Amino acid sequence: MRILLAQLNYLVGDVSGNTGKILGAMDEARKMQADGVLFSELALCGYPPEDLLLHDAFLKKVESALEEIGRASHGLFVVVGTIRKNPDNFGKPLHNSAAVFSDGRLLGFHDKWLLPTYDVFDERRYFAPGRDVSVWEHRGKKIGITICEDLWQHAGYVGFEGYDRDPVKAFASQSLDCMLNLSASPYHQKKAHQRLEVGAKAALSLQCPVLLCCQVGANDALIFDGYSFCVDHEGRLVAQACGFEEETLLVDLGSSHLQAREALHLMEDLYKALVLGVRDYFRKTGNTKACLGLSGGIDSAVVACIAVEALGKENVVGIAMPSRYSSKASSIDAKDLARHLQIECLEIPIEPPFQSFLSLLQSAFQGKKEDVTEENLQARIRGVLLMAFANKHKYLVLNTGNKSELALGYCTLYGDMCGALGVLADVLKTEVYALALWINHKQEIIPLSTIEKPPSAELRPNQKDSDTLPPYEILDKVIVGYLEEELSCQEMALRWGLDEKEVLSLLRRMDAAEYKRQQAALGLRVSKKAFQIGRRYPIVQKWI
Amino acid sequence: MRILLAQLNYLVGDVSGNTGKILGAMDEARKMQADGVLFSELALCGYPPEDLLLHDAFLKKVESALEEIGRASHGLFVVVGTIRKNPDNFGKPLHNSAAVFSDGRLLGFHDKWLLPTYDVFDERRYFAPGRDVSVWEHRGKKIGITICEDLWQHAGYVGFEGYDRDPVKAFASQSLDCMLNLSASPYHQKKAHQRLEVGAKAALSLQCPVLLCCQVGANDALIFDGYSFCVDHEGRLVAQACGFEEETLLVDLGSSHLQAREALHLMEDLYKALVLGVRDYFRKTGNTKACLGLSGGIDSAVVACIAVEALGKENVVGIAMPSRYSSKASSIDAKDLARHLQIECLEIPIEPPFQSFLSLLQSAFQGKKEDVTEENLQARIRGVLLMAFANKHKYLVLNTGNKSELALGYCTLYGDMCGALGVLADVLKTEVYALALWINHKQEIIPLSTIEKPPSAELRPNQKDSDTLPPYEILDKVIVGYLEEELSCQEMALRWGLDEKEVLSLLRRMDAAEYKRQQAALGLRVSKKAFQIGRRYPIVQKWI
Repeated sequence: MRILLAQLNYLVGDVSGNTGKILGAMDEARKMQADGVLFSELALCGYPPEDLLLHDAFLKKVESALEEIGRASHGLFVVVGTIRKNPDNFGKPLHNSAAVFSDGRLLGFHDKWLLPTYDVFDERRYFAPGRDVSVWEHRGKKIGITICEDLWQHAGYVGFEGYDRDPVKAFASQSLDCMLNLSASPYHQKKAHQRLEVGAKAALSLQCPVLLCCQVGANDALIFDGYSFCVDHEGRLVAQACGFEEETLLVDLGSSHLQAREALHLMEDLYKALVLGVRDYFRKTGNTKACLGLSGGIDSAVVACIAVEALGKENVVGIAMPSRYSSKASSIDAKDLARHLQIECLEIPIEPPFQSFLSLLQSAFQGKKEDVTEENLQARIRGVLLMAFANKHKYLVLNTGNKSELALGYCTLYGDMCGALGVLADVLKTEVYALALWINHKQEIIPLSTIEKPPSAELRPNQKDSDTLPPYEILDKVIVGYLEEELSCQEMALRWGLDEKEVLSLLRRMDAAEYKRQQAALGLRVSKKAFQIGRRYPIVQKWI
Repeated sequence: MRILLAQLNYLVGDVSGNTGKILGAMDEARKMQADGVLFSELALCGYPPEDLLLHDAFLKKVESALEEIGRASHGLFVVVGTIRKNPDNFGKPLHNSAAVFSDGRLLGFHDKWLLPTYDVFDERRYFAPGRDVSVWEHRGKKIGITICEDLWQHAGYVGFEGYDRDPVKAFASQSLDCMLNLSASPYHQKKAHQRLEVGAKAALSLQCPVLLCCQVGANDALIFDGYSFCVDHEGRLVAQACGFEEETLLVDLGSSHLQAREALHLMEDLYKALVLGVRDYFRKTGNTKACLGLSGGIDSAVVACIAVEALGKENVVGIAMPSRYSSKASSIDAKDLARHLQIECLEIPIEPPFQSFLSLLQSAFQGKKEDVTEENLQARIRGVLLMAFANKHKYLVLNTGNKSELALGYCTLYGDMCGALGVLADVLKTEVYALALWINHKQEIIPLSTIEKPPSAELRPNQKDSDTLPPYEILDKVIVGYLEEELSCQEMALRWGLDEKEVLSLLRRMDAAEYKRQQAALGLRVSKKAFQIGRRYPIVQKWI
């Protein structure tokens, strides 16, 4: 049997556009003389549709698109991810479903059983779980269908959800010839590897090949890396689509297995994810041009590289905004970077408005010492300049803050926190360094001095990040421990030989910065636990 | 039987503080010779605890506090809202539960059956549903216990959830002597009335009195209005606690019924909710002082009044920031308001930094006409000034934007959108006018000219809101129709006799402003459907 895996990039809510892509892949399948074609989870409406699902009119639009797809399915077995109305008179009004067509006829639906409601997932907000074990026949073959999470319980990845049913076990007695899985499956580091393991475990238990079709592309904070695949009945890889790009991959279930695609360098993988995140945010919102502040520091350098890769050098403008505290070296670094990337670079010194604000505020500040206010003021002047440039020339501002800063609130609201998209919002400072080294692995794009100098916000004389922050190696461990493993102070202190009080004070600072994070730019999610999208946290609370 | 309803104001995550409050009310109950005391939903951890629930250490802290409460329950029947570990080996790891103590002994738990997962509620993210119909005995009386939503299904309010069980029906055959309900139940307009109806319907079906104990106070965006009550077996009101304040109310189940508390004027009710929202945000985050921009317009005037009521006039500073486009009348209105409220008012004209930015940007703007950039620039300069004042003097900035502006994005990111708390973020412009009239019902606090002049942002010569926006009466209807009823363009055009294309263009503008709203200040939620907390909406999408 020959099945086309259609790994496509959908736009949320764009039912007609998505339908067009789906019909196109079906034509291609017929041309390739495939028996069937498999699409990804919620392909028709794009994933995740969020509260668009509350609109009746949205469901109606999807239903009529589905009919069109059905009519066009002549000669093919087609499985497409969609929403559908829950036919029962209890439970949430919709199912997250796979519509199954054969040769112009609707055979039925598989409704997703396991509805993730944790981290970035909200599926119980919208969907009722399915319960049926349906087996579909095509050209004498018995085919099972599952949707994403349906397979993950079996591989032991989501034990914390305590699902009371395991679809793989339920299908095990059905002597399937193959299992098709529709996934969306947002990216985080090392996720593609997990997905292969999940597919292999299901294949071994079902004793049949498993084809897993993923979405690719980015929607808001979520990035989808693709890497759709087929494993044989022993869990060995038979075919794999590429990462971070659309691909229609014809899989012959009879093929012999192949070598697994060599895993990308971790940083290449992360880089490609971020590039896709930026590219799709711009493309899907109808924007083409980005500007960003170039400080000469490492964060803005890495973001500039990603932006150039995503949008093209002619679409990226760097703006250096030196102050009285900026070092000459930083200014040189910013210009060197722009030269290496061949992007336009403006320089707008912030001294005049800084002076203007200081004298305007003189009487309101009387008797008060200089403090963080003057630092914030500089950052906010830069924010105003970036936004003014962006507004005037129809650019979007890229935010350059990293996750470590965001964790501790080491950043200025409306200042360096401004922008449409937080490119590094889920990238730890230590990872930013690793990214920079990877970007430079062939040639020096990011000036070495940017990488080698001690990080500084340059908002007061001789300032260093290390004046106010612990070493990033320690801070980043604590962030991961707190966010991804929900470790307590005691556990972290013990595990890494840290002072418990020091850890406690870091956690307090993290919690106290929640008010800033709730006004942060949309941040691309690349870790297992991102601030913002993956974490619902109160601002007003007294816990630690 | 005499039961104390303990309507208290809890701080999320403050397990020891909340325990102290609970123990205090138990002492009071004994002094009043009550038989029992009823607390609200999740009293022990505060509601909503959100992802604090993911920390094991949090559960442990709650468990040990619960033991303390148990030991202190001598002489009383005590029902307290708490989390507890789900004892089953499937399902989410926690229950949203009521712990039942009698005279120093733990009798058991009622676990919430119906777990709202819509709008502002995320309970399936954390909790497994309960299933037991337990009846508790105290002094020969048979007592049933339910938690909040458990009663709402029966009253027909949450049909869209499709719950497959109705706890009230399950208890109906138990010949209860009374039903105790622990609620959190966030405020929206007219909610207190709904709660009474829900209690009455349950009482009629159960043929016994219903006591419903609510939380009071605000946590983040959610405001809890209190109004705990008891209805008799025929659903007639027997006792009712006050709104918007803590109260411990002793209820004798044998009492005859009383007249329902006269409903507050709708605007008085809304005003009190907003005052509580502001007061608790400041108190619970350890802040005392607020500043806000005073434009002479109606939004900032209403926010100033609310702030003075919430924090005291000595803790509120108004800052007038006139520009070259500000009218003299507006400046007079701002000063009159400050004089009426007896608050300090600074004037900081923004012309010097405006000039400074314009000349700094001259070459970057070359060949471009004046446009919205220069308007945003003025708004952002004001944002910078407000934040600088707040940073220097340890104030929080109150945001003064209203829901109608936020809907259409008629506001400037990092400009008039800045601030810690959006006081009117969920109040429509037409409601802002109604609030202003109510505030003035005894004497002119808000200058009449502020109320009577046509609204304007004063960011260019002779600007009026009506240049860019439809009349607020129409806009506000469309906002409510889209958000609260999820109506389609066609339905709205038909219902209000509007042009379908005009409605379409409003909905498009609303959707397109999502990127701004996701960076907006935390907004107090007072309607059935607030942007931000109650609505998960994609930025990148193509629906309407």
